[in-house]
Amino acid sequence: MLYIDSISKGIVIDHITPGLGFRIFEYLKLDKSDFTVALIINAPSKKEGRKDVLKIENNIDLDLRVLGVIDPTVTVNIIRDEKIVEKIKISPPESVEDVMKCKNPRCVTSTEKGVIQKFSLLDKEELSYKCDYCDNIYNWEV
Amino acid sequence: MLYIDSISKGIVIDHITPGLGFRIFEYLKLDKSDFTVALIINAPSKKEGRKDVLKIENNIDLDLRVLGVIDPTVTVNIIRDEKIVEKIKISPPESVEDVMKCKNPRCVTSTEKGVIQKFSLLDKEELSYKCDYCDNIYNWEV
Repeated sequence: MLYIDSISKGIVIDHITPGLGFRIFEYLKLDKSDFTVALIINAPSKKEGRKDVLKIENNIDLDLRVLGVIDPTVTVNIIRDEKIVEKIKISPPESVEDVMKCKNPRCVTSTEKGVIQKFSLLDKEELSYKCDYCDNIYNWEV
Repeated sequence: MLYIDSISKGIVIDHITPGLGFRIFEYLKLDKSDFTVALIINAPSKKEGRKDVLKIENNIDLDLRVLGVIDPTVTVNIIRDEKIVEKIKISPPESVEDVMKCKNPRCVTSTEKGVIQKFSLLDKEELSYKCDYCDNIYNWEV
């Protein structure tokens, strides 16, 4: 069994759906970080069987809406002095701006410059979003 | 401080040059794995200051020559029953086949089909290799 112990300060993104830890890691560009980061994939979990976990030993800006679009099952723990000082539950945001990109070549966001990408939550279970301009439907893609 | 405890069986790639852990992770396609994997980047190290570490809780095929091309500073520990049963030191291989790809469009490996990519070690410190056919010089690139 592989154990990962506590960090003294920073952020732990826990209960990540297996397979999505790497995508969050990539989205946060953690491969370029100069602080300690641990990505654990398929960690044993009592509740879920398997989970991914991301431990970041630094206080970084974290867009919780984006996390909600990628994987709303996660919990975010804020750590100070080796203790959890805040536990944040994530949920998929009702609407997002400049997070996903519409791929419809005829959408006004493709044909016109400077139009802000806007999406609205369509299905909470499916985690699908529709483009506010052309109604094309998407899931999160890095 | 972030501690990562032992694994019961598998492979630990230790003393990875910071920044290269993610490249080895990518090269081994560990994001697609169905067993536990931990990638720690910028872990504190007594010897090196900082290092990357990769813990793989499974026995996977590991091409040690490729590891030697990416980062010959690593050590590979084979774990069984939570103990290191083998410690392998890596060195850059004198020659490699089908590991890197020559990018010279005029090289015979580019113009002819089915020619095996062959490279020879040029500089051990620089970790540079030259194509056996056209003498173009390369470092490892994923």
